[in-house]
Amino acid sequence: MRAEIISIGTELLLGQVVNSNAAFISRELAALGIEVYHHVTVGDNPDRLTAAVKEAEERADLIVLSGGLGPTEDDITKQTMSNHLDMDLILHEETEDRIITYHKNSDFEMPENNQLQALILAESTPLKNDTGLAVGMMLDHGDHQYVLLPGPPDELQPMVENHLKDELIKRLLDKQVLVSRVLRFFGITEAQLAKKIEAVVKGQTNPTVAVYANEGEITVRITARAETEKEGNRCIDEVESQILEPLTDYFFGYGEKKLDEVVRDLLMEQGLTITAAESLTGGAFLSSITSDISAGSVFEGGIVTYSTEKKHDVLNVSQKTIDNFGVVSPECAIEMAENSRKMFEADIGVGLTGVAGPGSLEGQIPGTVYIGLSYKGNASFAKHFHFGYKRNKNRRLAVLNTHDMVRRLILDKPIEKRLNYDEDQ
Amino acid sequence: MRAEIISIGTELLLGQVVNSNAAFISRELAALGIEVYHHVTVGDNPDRLTAAVKEAEERADLIVLSGGLGPTEDDITKQTMSNHLDMDLILHEETEDRIITYHKNSDFEMPENNQLQALILAESTPLKNDTGLAVGMMLDHGDHQYVLLPGPPDELQPMVENHLKDELIKRLLDKQVLVSRVLRFFGITEAQLAKKIEAVVKGQTNPTVAVYANEGEITVRITARAETEKEGNRCIDEVESQILEPLTDYFFGYGEKKLDEVVRDLLMEQGLTITAAESLTGGAFLSSITSDISAGSVFEGGIVTYSTEKKHDVLNVSQKTIDNFGVVSPECAIEMAENSRKMFEADIGVGLTGVAGPGSLEGQIPGTVYIGLSYKGNASFAKHFHFGYKRNKNRRLAVLNTHDMVRRLILDKPIEKRLNYDEDQ
Repeated sequence: MRAEIISIGTELLLGQVVNSNAAFISRELAALGIEVYHHVTVGDNPDRLTAAVKEAEERADLIVLSGGLGPTEDDITKQTMSNHLDMDLILHEETEDRIITYHKNSDFEMPENNQLQALILAESTPLKNDTGLAVGMMLDHGDHQYVLLPGPPDELQPMVENHLKDELIKRLLDKQVLVSRVLRFFGITEAQLAKKIEAVVKGQTNPTVAVYANEGEITVRITARAETEKEGNRCIDEVESQILEPLTDYFFGYGEKKLDEVVRDLLMEQGLTITAAESLTGGAFLSSITSDISAGSVFEGGIVTYSTEKKHDVLNVSQKTIDNFGVVSPECAIEMAENSRKMFEADIGVGLTGVAGPGSLEGQIPGTVYIGLSYKGNASFAKHFHFGYKRNKNRRLAVLNTHDMVRRLILDKPIEKRLNYDEDQ
Repeated sequence: MRAEIISIGTELLLGQVVNSNAAFISRELAALGIEVYHHVTVGDNPDRLTAAVKEAEERADLIVLSGGLGPTEDDITKQTMSNHLDMDLILHEETEDRIITYHKNSDFEMPENNQLQALILAESTPLKNDTGLAVGMMLDHGDHQYVLLPGPPDELQPMVENHLKDELIKRLLDKQVLVSRVLRFFGITEAQLAKKIEAVVKGQTNPTVAVYANEGEITVRITARAETEKEGNRCIDEVESQILEPLTDYFFGYGEKKLDEVVRDLLMEQGLTITAAESLTGGAFLSSITSDISAGSVFEGGIVTYSTEKKHDVLNVSQKTIDNFGVVSPECAIEMAENSRKMFEADIGVGLTGVAGPGSLEGQIPGTVYIGLSYKGNASFAKHFHFGYKRNKNRRLAVLNTHDMVRRLILDKPIEKRLNYDEDQ
């Protein structure tokens, strides 16, 4: 099956909104084995939309339209498709009820046009909108399938995941099921990872393997078609073990949980608390720890010591360390980690120091970072990194690598090239 | 002039990359008065690219292609256009020299194909790549103009701003000049702002006025065509004063400088230092202060006190305040501000406390935030906010509103509804 995605909205053509929907829909279709050869964007204009649909009909089986399902006069998608297909719009009563109930409960008066959002193409299957009012739809007509989705990503995404996917799978698979699993990796580049699993991925059609990278974290999605879910999972198990074999050291978890979430959950499971003293990252690690409500059970507080003076005065980094090694040193990172742990009475203390850039510091080049770790009952140590990017990317990579080190520490996994406090200097 | 944007790259069709280039180019073209009616995306496929260019030639004057200028065999844009237009590719020596010099200085060996990035269409004007190696180009041919840009946004954007714009202006304006100015606002919603300047914007063709919103900050770009730059600025001055009249309280600066950068510059100009004690935001405010290298002159450090215990033990918030008012209170925010200022010997101290959500705290609903300010020689105070969003958006809005309060404090602008420490309770 071949698909084409048509995005509708003048705000897209003016550049006021970046079109993230086309990428999202493409990823979902790719996971189902559906190929996408064109994305097209048109404004809120019935003639240009009709022309785009006609072109798409020439080159695709499945035509996915997003946007223009709202209640205003700019929302032209349904009326345009009704004219193009010569098919009536009829009222979807369930959606009408939802719209009326929503306005009853919200104290807002219902705008007159709001019920337009409950109209669907007569022969279509409605797709429920779990997070908004405009109903979506899927339609088989002639040689084509048409899908109409709302424009706001927070309405479109649940509609695709919770409703459209099932409709597509029904049509695609004919009683087969589709099972997928996401593996997450850190500490390796996308190119390195792709090379290591080249032989597994090449020519793989069932299951399919797709690799996505997002600044430091890499996800691999394995998707299998099978007669039963059990059979699908068996296929995936096999491919997964081939993928993990050369990558086991970089693997940190399944599904949608990112590295910082995995670390927070590990801390919770083991009843551990964490703190940090940050210099170059200025609070970004602490902020990432507190991004979820569960932070309260693993975190009480931390400190940012940006100047050398405050590292000494407030955090008690010794003058000897500062004089002998400088603040961009493994020794300083270790003392920051240990002293933050004392100050906030935590099980794990982190010290982050380095040169975010663009300038140098203490003769060290931008991107130089030392991450120190202090863990009750263990010898403290630091690790050296060099990130060759711009200031804020260097800072983000320092935060991610801290999470990775903490994860390895908790799970007793190898952390190579540990640096200790060098008493001899 | 009417334009069409063609984005090239299989990674876009797989959804691995979101197409931000089309939006960026559209905004730049809109500012020049060039209308965009279609965005099209195709993969790294010569036939489909040729077909897309032919379609675009039917409906647009200016055809902007992005992507596919790199050195690998997937990069097919130049060769495809060379075939389509029956025009040779020739070597652009300046770019070739840059590529050779770059590899000499970088210790990397130059890959054999790298010089492909120096080839241009024979009759085109090269567009310099300030941040990468692949040269861009602009070409007038028959009834059309063609522009070829690199795919990476950090190469494409400077090329458009620094080089393409001048080429387009030359063709568009025939000795006229184009002047534009960006105004930045905070503390008002996009809809409210649009309503207040509705009369100014409506029917405005020269200068044009465009409004963009980005989570809290709103920019208004005024663009004028004129015979001279002076005349253009005079037109803009007039429209600017009409726009500022109802919006003066929300205006915080010109150009690309965001609110946190404006605050950092103000602190520097006035020789002031800042610190903060953060609870719900967990370090995000401190991190935003340190996002730029200049942070060192206005900031020495700060503290995150997430638990009630650490607010008391480490930051010395009094037990009386905690018992009488709770930690989600103006009194606690004020003490956090004052104590952080003492701890880090700063001129301005900020206290951030509240309920990020999704759960409640001390009977206060999610989104409740108190921001305290302590400024040497002035009475400390706090301000109450309620943000009705999800946890991390509530946190981001708390950080932005802190910057806004600090800006008002430094400039002695009104801060309404100040709350003081209520000794009576």
